[in-house]
Amino acid sequence: MPNHIVLYQPEIPNNTGNIGRTCAATDTTLHLIHPLGFSTDDKMLKRAGLDYWPNINVVHHGSVEAFFEETEGNYYLLTKFATKYYTDLDYSNHAENHYFVFGRETSGLPDWMKEKYADTALRVPMTDKVRSLNLANTAAILVYEALKQQSFPQLH
Amino acid sequence: MPNHIVLYQPEIPNNTGNIGRTCAATDTTLHLIHPLGFSTDDKMLKRAGLDYWPNINVVHHGSVEAFFEETEGNYYLLTKFATKYYTDLDYSNHAENHYFVFGRETSGLPDWMKEKYADTALRVPMTDKVRSLNLANTAAILVYEALKQQSFPQLH
Repeated sequence: MPNHIVLYQPEIPNNTGNIGRTCAATDTTLHLIHPLGFSTDDKMLKRAGLDYWPNINVVHHGSVEAFFEETEGNYYLLTKFATKYYTDLDYSNHAENHYFVFGRETSGLPDWMKEKYADTALRVPMTDKVRSLNLANTAAILVYEALKQQSFPQLH
Repeated sequence: MPNHIVLYQPEIPNNTGNIGRTCAATDTTLHLIHPLGFSTDDKMLKRAGLDYWPNINVVHHGSVEAFFEETEGNYYLLTKFATKYYTDLDYSNHAENHYFVFGRETSGLPDWMKEKYADTALRVPMTDKVRSLNLANTAAILVYEALKQQSFPQLH
């Protein structure tokens, strides 16, 4: 499957577990850029991911530099500073890898990444009543927009 | 705003709090059909909803019968037994109320409701590696599909 969720140094195990469940539900690959703010044996991680963790294709990367060396495709950084909506881009090509990259819960993504990949940076529109959506919800919204454009391959 | 999330007798405060945050982010009305499996003073509810709870338009209904008497519009029941995908229907009419109705986490929706509203029952396609998506993620996917069809009114 062409879709990838990338978590940059995630801090909250419940979010990563919850996103893992979405990955299992959609054959999306989950990339974790270390260091993590929790152990992958964490109880909260497994509780949120329920018993789905063995069904998830998880790829660990030792650093953000290693992640970019070890992958190839389209990188979409989620940031509230992006000018494009997540619905503005075309993810329909099954033959390409689409990486949706999410920053750390408290501090987001490094400035150099946001500058380098500014052309394909995305945001989810919202009111000014919240600072942000929940990370796992945002990941689910993005993956399902990509899947919809791909006509839900191999899902039923 | 024309969109409504309806939770039928929700049991897990963390889910309701998380969905409340999505409602605040999107000016979606949150309907809670009682009895609830938790107190609305619950710590987990407030933690998941963060400090957004005062910004959410919450409507309480004493029973499911009261809910249907007190509301009017299009009712979309989320159930894995639906034949339509959530992307198959048209939510673009701003002048109508769109109610996305979610069942209890453990036991879903009553059979009579699923039969009565079978024509507009919806599901989110997924692999067979999971029993379901997380409830809050499903709600976010649905609301953002409706908002996209409505061209993200009043969001930015």
